[in-house]
Amino acid sequence: MRIGELSERSGVAIPTIKYYVREGLVPTGLRTKANQVDYGETHLRRLRLVRALLEVGELSVATASRVVAVLDDPDESALRSMGKAAYALAGGFPAAVPAGADGTAGASAPDVDPASVTRVDDLLDRHGWTVGPNNPARAQLAAAVAAAEALGLGDALELLDRYAEAAYSVAEVDVELALSPATLDESTERMLVWTVVGDRAMSALRRLAHEAVAVKRM
Amino acid sequence: MRIGELSERSGVAIPTIKYYVREGLVPTGLRTKANQVDYGETHLRRLRLVRALLEVGELSVATASRVVAVLDDPDESALRSMGKAAYALAGGFPAAVPAGADGTAGASAPDVDPASVTRVDDLLDRHGWTVGPNNPARAQLAAAVAAAEALGLGDALELLDRYAEAAYSVAEVDVELALSPATLDESTERMLVWTVVGDRAMSALRRLAHEAVAVKRM
Repeated sequence: MRIGELSERSGVAIPTIKYYVREGLVPTGLRTKANQVDYGETHLRRLRLVRALLEVGELSVATASRVVAVLDDPDESALRSMGKAAYALAGGFPAAVPAGADGTAGASAPDVDPASVTRVDDLLDRHGWTVGPNNPARAQLAAAVAAAEALGLGDALELLDRYAEAAYSVAEVDVELALSPATLDESTERMLVWTVVGDRAMSALRRLAHEAVAVKRM
Repeated sequence: MRIGELSERSGVAIPTIKYYVREGLVPTGLRTKANQVDYGETHLRRLRLVRALLEVGELSVATASRVVAVLDDPDESALRSMGKAAYALAGGFPAAVPAGADGTAGASAPDVDPASVTRVDDLLDRHGWTVGPNNPARAQLAAAVAAAEALGLGDALELLDRYAEAAYSVAEVDVELALSPATLDESTERMLVWTVVGDRAMSALRRLAHEAVAVKRM
């Protein structure tokens, strides 16, 4: 299809598509004649993913670039590819890069409080979760733990076991959903899109549930 | 205490405290002499709340002002005050204001898709949640539903029942936590802080759980 049709079907303006191509977020089209470039379903799918990452996930263009780079260099295992993409996705969070296994501090997280990191490790152990030392969500959780302590909400941390059970329960269906399509590319894309959209949905549902629980107690 | 001690105990720089006071986020101190203003524990607590809203919750100063305005004009019921504060908190989300009961579109959400709103209503009914029509999280969830549809992830919406159960499970302990202190002010503040910090924790735990679930399947 020509860029005009790609724009219409994706809902993304032509100059924006050209910008995404220049930034490496969307692959270049196939030049069929001197003045004609063709785009296919792959481009349409990639545009949807990029919109989800930038608009729903509010990632920076730099982080989104790292995420799509994983898609362009997939692992032979679907789960491994998905894992790499998930790690890249978290690059946009503050305090996203945890201390390395070699003891060096992560680039964006020089001040992750060691007591909070220990608290996260203990939680993962208690629930029997096997999670790599470099999963950026470790540092993200440690930052939330440290924030709760600093804000005088240390007792809230006792709720984290319930949170972990709830998170595991949704992660099980998330992984099923991601693995349902036939191709590896699609699996990874679905996982990425649903990771960011599902975060939004969970946040909204938690706030709705706060009201539903409060109403019951009135 | 003097502003210097307040700064030290809160970890917030003096010019920043003065800025918060000017913006109405923190109440003015008590002028005890011509050149001396005194601050108390109330100011310290309020500073922690403001930091949580701005830094962890990434709210705008305008939204944070609306949230603290609720604290300064509390309802006689703790749960109602908490509800008002929670509604104000969501003001910072895109598409936060739902269509009015009179059929007019909400100010910040002229394009919330009616099919997505119906989907949210059905979900709340199915789970027996009583939630006011103006709870801004309704529009937030509808926006996430619409995004999933637009991004080709309509089948992900079947997972929302599991998400709702998980959200209810954490909301129950959240409300307990918020109601544990003796005073209404503190209850509302704890609820606000933990709403934003808990969102971060849940997002991180979900990503950690994705890896734990994937590892089990390898």
